Amino acid sequence: MGFEADKNYMMQAIKLAKKGIGRTKPNPTVGAVLVKQNKVIGQGYHKGPGKDHAEIAAIKNATQSVTNSTLYVTLEPCCHSGRTGPCTDEIIKSKIKRVVIASKDPFSLVNGKGVRILRKAGIEVTTNILHKEAQMLNEGYFVFHKEKRPFVTLKLAQSLDGKIATVEGDSKYLSSKESLKFVHQLRMQSDAVVIGGNTLRTDNPQLTVRMVKGENPYRIVLSKRLDFSDKYALIRNKDNKTIIASTDRAIKRFIKSKRSSNIIYWSLKPHGNSIDLNDLLSKAYEFEFHSLLFEGGAELASSLLREKLVDRLILVITPYIIGKGIDSFVDYEIKNLQSKLSFSSYEFKEVGKDIVLEGYFKK
Amino acid sequence: MGFEADKNYMMQAIKLAKKGIGRTKPNPTVGAVLVKQNKVIGQGYHKGPGKDHAEIAAIKNATQSVTNSTLYVTLEPCCHSGRTGPCTDEIIKSKIKRVVIASKDPFSLVNGKGVRILRKAGIEVTTNILHKEAQMLNEGYFVFHKEKRPFVTLKLAQSLDGKIATVEGDSKYLSSKESLKFVHQLRMQSDAVVIGGNTLRTDNPQLTVRMVKGENPYRIVLSKRLDFSDKYALIRNKDNKTIIASTDRAIKRFIKSKRSSNIIYWSLKPHGNSIDLNDLLSKAYEFEFHSLLFEGGAELASSLLREKLVDRLILVITPYIIGKGIDSFVDYEIKNLQSKLSFSSYEFKEVGKDIVLEGYFKK
Repeated sequence: MGFEADKNYMMQAIKLAKKGIGRTKPNPTVGAVLVKQNKVIGQGYHKGPGKDHAEIAAIKNATQSVTNSTLYVTLEPCCHSGRTGPCTDEIIKSKIKRVVIASKDPFSLVNGKGVRILRKAGIEVTTNILHKEAQMLNEGYFVFHKEKRPFVTLKLAQSLDGKIATVEGDSKYLSSKESLKFVHQLRMQSDAVVIGGNTLRTDNPQLTVRMVKGENPYRIVLSKRLDFSDKYALIRNKDNKTIIASTDRAIKRFIKSKRSSNIIYWSLKPHGNSIDLNDLLSKAYEFEFHSLLFEGGAELASSLLREKLVDRLILVITPYIIGKGIDSFVDYEIKNLQSKLSFSSYEFKEVGKDIVLEGYFKK
Repeated sequence: MGFEADKNYMMQAIKLAKKGIGRTKPNPTVGAVLVKQNKVIGQGYHKGPGKDHAEIAAIKNATQSVTNSTLYVTLEPCCHSGRTGPCTDEIIKSKIKRVVIASKDPFSLVNGKGVRILRKAGIEVTTNILHKEAQMLNEGYFVFHKEKRPFVTLKLAQSLDGKIATVEGDSKYLSSKESLKFVHQLRMQSDAVVIGGNTLRTDNPQLTVRMVKGENPYRIVLSKRLDFSDKYALIRNKDNKTIIASTDRAIKRFIKSKRSSNIIYWSLKPHGNSIDLNDLLSKAYEFEFHSLLFEGGAELASSLLREKLVDRLILVITPYIIGKGIDSFVDYEIKNLQSKLSFSSYEFKEVGKDIVLEGYFKK
């Protein structure tokens, strides 16, 4: 089968995979298509932990015998036993003739071993078809396994002129409803949302997924001093998904004085007036978070930029002019334009009445 | 002929009119199409002062007799003798049966009189077909005649986070080449470009039309103190198109101490640390400027916003983050988000690697 046909079938598999976005954590989203004599005879995608892997779903859904068919799958088939058995065994058993894989699985237990097992069994294997598109499906998963840290998205909502609030701190209803929905989608796709103590105090946010379907992410409140009361929604929440990241000392004091329960505490190194962000990322990695969404405020955003920890910036720009106010990157500074951070790729898209920049920083 | 057909032919006339953009000053841009038995038999547009009006050009270009045809014209035909004779006479003489007009001419010597003359001669006249689109062709012309002031465009080039320069003032090559071309197009369409004294000193700009074809606009330098030397390009330029707008006293002192010639001086009322902007607009009206393009800097931009003098904002946003730096609207402030200036309409468009907001303020 030709290269163009391979790409077309792989694109179908990627579309299928997308149906699982936000539902498969901590597993990656994967899609699969079975093709025999230029006809799709089976399709499947991974629906979540414990459920069939995409390859198995496609085999089960096949409308005719899969013997001698070609399997298109967005991620290298697994060869280890997790909650389900190894997919490589099933593929070999099914007498599939050829397997086309978009991207190798970076997970150390797979990482090329799946391909080797299939080839050893006499199956023709083609790799790297729509490799980049397939990796975009699971940005967090790839960064997590390859770089031993979570994928970091920084999201800010600002006015046209780069302010997150007026001089008096007014920021209510800055973004449009459509943009809020977009943010809820981002949350749904993230393992945890991170905010600073000031944002907790100012906005008292819920950080739940409301405008789209999906699981709530964990919430991490980052604060060196932990000098806030227990009246805030995140502190009172009893779903065991609030994490307080602070210093050992501040956490001990906080636990003693507050009647909050069901909170997870991360004791981290301090850094200046805040918490060491690299230490935060290490801890998040240990906790098996693939992706973190930083939602504010401006100081935290500046620190992330300064330390070059942002993979993806999402800037929701609302067509207002605020003038004097609180800068989006209040604590960030460059000497001259040559030393600016550059995007390796970015796009602008209209979301409701806002414009959203989605940019990936050069690393 | 039906309404849809009328709109289609008028759209053709508007497209023709656009060919004249930037070349017809101080006349409006106008396009015309002649239709007979559902066939276009003549087309024309106004090419500039002294040249045929669009209607006459269409009649002259007609491939067959125009008797009993329908004339589509984007602006009400004139009925006065300027550099050319009245178009109404020619239309009547040509035995055109019907005239479809997008918009009445706001110019006091026409302003509905053209329509009345045609109707009196027994010609069927339809008005207000694609009225808004036709007015957009000549925004300056309409505002000038209706509101006795020039149409005001404020253009700023900024980073994603609303900065026009770094802390150290670096702003070189902020925008992409495509955006610069877009700015030259704006200049070509404007009667005059306005800058503050600081921008003269910092950028020493030429403010000429270079990347597109078209006439150079006048340049107005606004400065209360006129405390700059005569070394700048605009001051040394000998094309009689530099205007210095300042107070009477400062102008007298400037003339005495500098060896600049070929400069036009506008003596205006002071206002705070600057010049009264309403007085500037009045003077520009007297000078028959239909459209002014304010190109900087940040203080002038803030004053314009504060005094609600901006009709159209053009914000060229380059995907850089500058952090601390010079704010686009450094001297503008709103109490809360309710009191913000709102756009009546706006759009974002990608220009090269930048995104450009074009917004019209509610008036």
